[in-house]
Amino acid sequence: MFRKEIKVTDCTIRDGGLINKWQFSHELVRKVFLAVNQSGVDFMEMGYRATTKMFDPKVYGPWRFTTDEDVRKIIQDTPVNMKLGVMVDIGRVEEDDIAPCEESPLDFIRVATYIQDIDKAITLANHIDSKGYMSFINIMAISTAGEFELCEALQQIESETNVTTVNIVDSFGFLFSESVHHLVKLFQDNLKTKNVGIHAHNNQQLGFANTIEAIRKGANYLDATISGIGRGAGNCPLELLLSFLKNPKFSLEPILQVFEDVFLDLRKKIEWGYLIPYMITGILNEHPRIAIALRQDPENRDKYAEFYRTMTTPESSSDE
Amino acid sequence: MFRKEIKVTDCTIRDGGLINKWQFSHELVRKVFLAVNQSGVDFMEMGYRATTKMFDPKVYGPWRFTTDEDVRKIIQDTPVNMKLGVMVDIGRVEEDDIAPCEESPLDFIRVATYIQDIDKAITLANHIDSKGYMSFINIMAISTAGEFELCEALQQIESETNVTTVNIVDSFGFLFSESVHHLVKLFQDNLKTKNVGIHAHNNQQLGFANTIEAIRKGANYLDATISGIGRGAGNCPLELLLSFLKNPKFSLEPILQVFEDVFLDLRKKIEWGYLIPYMITGILNEHPRIAIALRQDPENRDKYAEFYRTMTTPESSSDE
Repeated sequence: MFRKEIKVTDCTIRDGGLINKWQFSHELVRKVFLAVNQSGVDFMEMGYRATTKMFDPKVYGPWRFTTDEDVRKIIQDTPVNMKLGVMVDIGRVEEDDIAPCEESPLDFIRVATYIQDIDKAITLANHIDSKGYMSFINIMAISTAGEFELCEALQQIESETNVTTVNIVDSFGFLFSESVHHLVKLFQDNLKTKNVGIHAHNNQQLGFANTIEAIRKGANYLDATISGIGRGAGNCPLELLLSFLKNPKFSLEPILQVFEDVFLDLRKKIEWGYLIPYMITGILNEHPRIAIALRQDPENRDKYAEFYRTMTTPESSSDE
Repeated sequence: MFRKEIKVTDCTIRDGGLINKWQFSHELVRKVFLAVNQSGVDFMEMGYRATTKMFDPKVYGPWRFTTDEDVRKIIQDTPVNMKLGVMVDIGRVEEDDIAPCEESPLDFIRVATYIQDIDKAITLANHIDSKGYMSFINIMAISTAGEFELCEALQQIESETNVTTVNIVDSFGFLFSESVHHLVKLFQDNLKTKNVGIHAHNNQQLGFANTIEAIRKGANYLDATISGIGRGAGNCPLELLLSFLKNPKFSLEPILQVFEDVFLDLRKKIEWGYLIPYMITGILNEHPRIAIALRQDPENRDKYAEFYRTMTTPESSSDE
């Protein structure tokens, strides 16, 4: 039994790049592209699209910008079995960075936004739509969004955009099954003509579990990355998700092959995955940035108990 | 909000010992004991109890036998805030290995059994009960038990024993939320006067998630280990479980402290946790022994795709 409406989006390069400033070689990205393309995955997010006016290409690798030209270098002559796209952040991309869809190898563009920027996200999504791409909106840090504001934002998206899907993004890795169930229902209730998706983080070893729970409640768009690569605790692992989905179109073997060929070595050079500091920010519903900073401090990176005390000790004054 | 009926059992030493033949020093076990004793955890399983007629003490460490004398060396003069116990396997312990409870520092003994040995497990549980201990039964490899046989076994346990709790043991790490829900209900329906517990494995990164799902459906006895230590993919991590349970009696900090003091170093010497070979045996509902053997083969330990092919290729003949 499988649900044919389910679509999987691989975000390996886009989300993994948050760890190393998108400094992946074209050779590595080509290997990932070939594996994902063989696996039956529906969408592949190749990186972020951003303006070089805000990011220095000497510091940031090619997948911070993901030009159409770079994407063509990856595809070469390979027949593409999936839709390709990029993510854009509010205020970090200019209208001219997005060529008309018919001139681009890309099919979709996802807008990442916080709830307070929803009007800007809608404007950007509509610009993307007007250029001929499929558009998506990812609402980040969902576990800190007020429910009133969230419903209002979803209703705006419903009435003012043509987006294909709106994604629940558990940026802090705070959610568990019941909160996922609640959010999927709330999204469904407010998005009568759009799909609901999920992008889950693994701070509490619940990235895959929460994705399953979203599926059970009807979410059809699922984000995952090979080996769970992604900033901090990382994401729902693509290999677990494909093995869970029973659609015979999916093939696990190319993902396992590229895991052993590329990701074992990469994990020795850059760090991601479940570690206690990320668990602590997750259970406290905090952004992982302070845990990421701790992991970069050789003297304190494994001082878990002290980090927990610091994070949970009330400030000297409790005045509001 | 918390449920006061919930009891947590730490199995760190007992289950962790499956990796290193229970060769933990008394100093290490003392550190774990002190941390667990401070954390508010209800039960601590100190090791297996077994007969030296079947296991050579030159090969197996003290926690394969867990004599009352060794347990007293761990406790010293520390006031014990929890119940202490051991696990026994069918046929690997003799009646004389179990002293009367009033002469022992132990409070409980858990019988681990496969479904086909349930009559032997009941006999052993009743012997334990007659010696004055709390008795428990853990049904291993639950994902391969036939439902008819399982219901019959549970009804026998219900009518023929005084066990406190019967545990669902997902030895292969095959279950996900819906199968956990189903099993908890099936156990509850057949065990009107006993508690239901869960011991979850992490082959699919679902050890903690499945424990949450068992809690949601009414399971009150929960197994976990510090850092998830345990054979193969390991178990539900105690640090995640305690942070999830809102009972103020639980304290996370001693567990985080012993994690950094003991388990970071231990993980450099022995291996456990989510790895692709364990995922593969988990999704195929197989015992992890073949994945454990692969991990011990330096040439092939990371040949994931080949391992998957071997495990999924039908034998040359498909005759039944």
